[in-house]
Amino acid sequence: MSAAIKHIGVVGAGNMGSMMTLRFAELGLAVSVWDVVKENVDEVVNYSKDDKDISGRVQGFYDINEFSKSLDGKSERKVFMFSITHGEPADEVLRMLKPDLKEGDIILDGGNEHYRRTERRQKECASIGVSWIGMGVSGGYQSARRGPSLSPGGDAKAIELVMPFLESYAAKDPKTKTPCVKHMGPGGSGHFIKMVHNGIEGGMLSVLAETWQYMHDGLGMEHTEIGDVFDKWNESGELRGNFLVRIGANILHTRRPKEGDKKGEEASRDDGYVLDDVLDKVVQDDDNTEGTPLWSIMESAARHVSCPTLAVSHYMRISSGNRPERVQAAKKLGMSLPKPIEGTREHAEIIEDLRKAVYCSFLASFCQGLELISRASIDEGWGVDLGDCLQIWRAGCIIQSDYIADLLQPPLSGNKELTNVKFVDAVAHELHQNFQSLKRVVLEGTMFDQYIPALSATLEYLKYEGGLGLPTKFMEAQMDYFGAHSYNKPGIPGEDPGPVSKGPHHYEWAPA
Amino acid sequence: MSAAIKHIGVVGAGNMGSMMTLRFAELGLAVSVWDVVKENVDEVVNYSKDDKDISGRVQGFYDINEFSKSLDGKSERKVFMFSITHGEPADEVLRMLKPDLKEGDIILDGGNEHYRRTERRQKECASIGVSWIGMGVSGGYQSARRGPSLSPGGDAKAIELVMPFLESYAAKDPKTKTPCVKHMGPGGSGHFIKMVHNGIEGGMLSVLAETWQYMHDGLGMEHTEIGDVFDKWNESGELRGNFLVRIGANILHTRRPKEGDKKGEEASRDDGYVLDDVLDKVVQDDDNTEGTPLWSIMESAARHVSCPTLAVSHYMRISSGNRPERVQAAKKLGMSLPKPIEGTREHAEIIEDLRKAVYCSFLASFCQGLELISRASIDEGWGVDLGDCLQIWRAGCIIQSDYIADLLQPPLSGNKELTNVKFVDAVAHELHQNFQSLKRVVLEGTMFDQYIPALSATLEYLKYEGGLGLPTKFMEAQMDYFGAHSYNKPGIPGEDPGPVSKGPHHYEWAPA
Repeated sequence: MSAAIKHIGVVGAGNMGSMMTLRFAELGLAVSVWDVVKENVDEVVNYSKDDKDISGRVQGFYDINEFSKSLDGKSERKVFMFSITHGEPADEVLRMLKPDLKEGDIILDGGNEHYRRTERRQKECASIGVSWIGMGVSGGYQSARRGPSLSPGGDAKAIELVMPFLESYAAKDPKTKTPCVKHMGPGGSGHFIKMVHNGIEGGMLSVLAETWQYMHDGLGMEHTEIGDVFDKWNESGELRGNFLVRIGANILHTRRPKEGDKKGEEASRDDGYVLDDVLDKVVQDDDNTEGTPLWSIMESAARHVSCPTLAVSHYMRISSGNRPERVQAAKKLGMSLPKPIEGTREHAEIIEDLRKAVYCSFLASFCQGLELISRASIDEGWGVDLGDCLQIWRAGCIIQSDYIADLLQPPLSGNKELTNVKFVDAVAHELHQNFQSLKRVVLEGTMFDQYIPALSATLEYLKYEGGLGLPTKFMEAQMDYFGAHSYNKPGIPGEDPGPVSKGPHHYEWAPA
Repeated sequence: MSAAIKHIGVVGAGNMGSMMTLRFAELGLAVSVWDVVKENVDEVVNYSKDDKDISGRVQGFYDINEFSKSLDGKSERKVFMFSITHGEPADEVLRMLKPDLKEGDIILDGGNEHYRRTERRQKECASIGVSWIGMGVSGGYQSARRGPSLSPGGDAKAIELVMPFLESYAAKDPKTKTPCVKHMGPGGSGHFIKMVHNGIEGGMLSVLAETWQYMHDGLGMEHTEIGDVFDKWNESGELRGNFLVRIGANILHTRRPKEGDKKGEEASRDDGYVLDDVLDKVVQDDDNTEGTPLWSIMESAARHVSCPTLAVSHYMRISSGNRPERVQAAKKLGMSLPKPIEGTREHAEIIEDLRKAVYCSFLASFCQGLELISRASIDEGWGVDLGDCLQIWRAGCIIQSDYIADLLQPPLSGNKELTNVKFVDAVAHELHQNFQSLKRVVLEGTMFDQYIPALSATLEYLKYEGGLGLPTKFMEAQMDYFGAHSYNKPGIPGEDPGPVSKGPHHYEWAPA
């Protein structure tokens, strides 16, 4: 029934689209590629000509109608892969393509689109019999070239038709060879899951960056030394097979070569680390090129899911972007700077605690993200299998964490409604086991003024998620005082514990 | 030109609407009041009958058309005050009232409405010549009775017409007698500012609740002892004239009277504190009755303003609401519980540090909220004067903080574009001065397992807002590695500092 996809149209030849184009050609497909920037088209076409394995399979177009006509009549249906900026650009291209679309055509949107926009386009396209599939593509441009993690969501029949193609393209779990692609659910579920992947990524990025600096400024370690530690972490134990730890090690070992990087970056003057060429400034939130991490925070607030590790990571990242303001504020604030950690313990002990703190905070980031997916899936009726998320994150993606996947996938497989991942015994056990290490890291980090927003927020998260006498007792009393909010009483059957709804008691603390 | 408002129609006779009704009558207005719940109407009408000062001025209606007709012909225009649940209920009532509305009528929406919905209704009403004014009303039901803080936003002419009435109703700054009401700006600006007020309130509530528990569990202080400390804090120094500290002291001194509270709460069996009758469970986010704090978090993410104190406070509050889940998770997680703080320092020293930590975190909450208002005002073209926010928050509202208002109002008055409040010398100085106290509180709190999410997030916020060598350097390198994000270089003119936009350098860390 599902005739193999033999021809595909790639919309967008940027970082991701050009890599997809080359890989699709390698997989044997004829690829038509179009981009609004002619140079992007030329570049990928020229590159393909130099590669004899794919030579002739890539055809570039400057004109979008010629592009779409090139797909006509070649097979039962036209199949497109969108790889362009979310929002208006995708709408604009859809408008241009629409007159050429026919019933049965399939558009895979591989951009980082907001799931509500995806759902809008799904409805619009459904009215002309076209299937718009919102599909997360994770792993960055290297993975787009070799095999990324894919999360298609939308019409089941259309996804079934393209699944053999997606399976051939997707990364493969090295253990089982299973492709890292699953039909996640209907509607915008695929893009939602990719959004949360990027939210978890944001938490993990901050945790690891804080840890790098802890070692560098706090323990006085050279980049290569830290790189060696990261390499070791990545070999075995709780951080084995962790993508960000692995590339972190690579970064820390990278020195500027004498001849430059041959891609435009200048030669080394001092045999220095490339890392030291990088300013502490992440701007892709401010410039709105990357929406996913901030959408994750918005969704966590809207759906009442506690995601502090992801949020505080995002806030430091935001603050980092506006360096001109920071320079001005820093002069006035005169804040403490990170100091050498001295006189506490052996550095080896601290490093082992850091490893466990990173693991614990990574695991907490997964809990927060998965709980957000679970909540959304229940709210929207998507029926997402949480085990499928772990499966597609096994390889090819940025948050790949082999140990965590091994821990989470078996208990979550088939689970479509777990709103608290800490209920899983193995998860609770691991968080418990590593809590003291995280605490010592936060304690010494605070003492010596390290930057530890994500690490410390994770520590607090674990305390209150597992706490039965929270400060919110006082908050609840205050809200009853001024807002007549009313409360439940401790120890009263039906109230403690009771439903997540307003309690029956109001005390008239002060007359109106 | 502006004939005095003599008759008003109050829509909704809940906690807030009934208090408004009584106060408006006291101010000499004839008040028509309607509610979908008849008992609410009866209650406020009966109450008004017992008060000879206002007897006869309050007329209740079960039928909304009779209600609106009661306002017809009494004056040049009908004026309504809405005090009902945000979202659909307000739309529903507007639909019912619409046929009776005439050109020139004014609707003041005093609910906690989302500013985008306010703007939608403003457009809808403008098409029939009716002015819909989105107005924040802060201070809870006691203030609604005696004079709240008001933030009207929308059509300037309509607001000018009702301003004398609003000024008579609003709380008065005790120092200058200035009413706590200002025309904040056009569109949804008034509701946006109220939303942020509630976001700041959320941060302050958590900071104070954490501090109460720190003293209770950490320092082993009885509720009354803590209440005495709060009273002292509220008398002079940086926490003087602080509403939440003041009512906190009242709460901590409140014991169940032998005869009950005469409002339905039972008599004391053990002369205990009412506070100990309150469960640690805040649910009004989960049940969507209170949207403002979560909207604040969403806006901070959408507009790229770092608001970690507000966000982590909200996340603990969310976690608190689902106590059944917490009970289950707590058993499995086996987390450390708050322990007595022993062997570090004199308790008096710790208490003084707590006072400064509370102040510092309150001030940081104001910075975060004001920066969010400023960013939104610039984005939306509202032209909000930040000094006006401080003015309306001088009395009647939940975040009233006399010292902070004295500190912030002079430098912010007339300022419509300050995106970083830490640029104000006095603010930076205060944050700097209290940083070490906050740090000691976080340090000892971490050591003895106190719940300190908002306090510790504030400490981190201050460090990175005033830091020039952030861990985001490593994050930026990682994002360039997998995402070809590209970066700026340190020390290169035009790049450091440079615009908040993508840097020109990409290093090919690993080939695609």
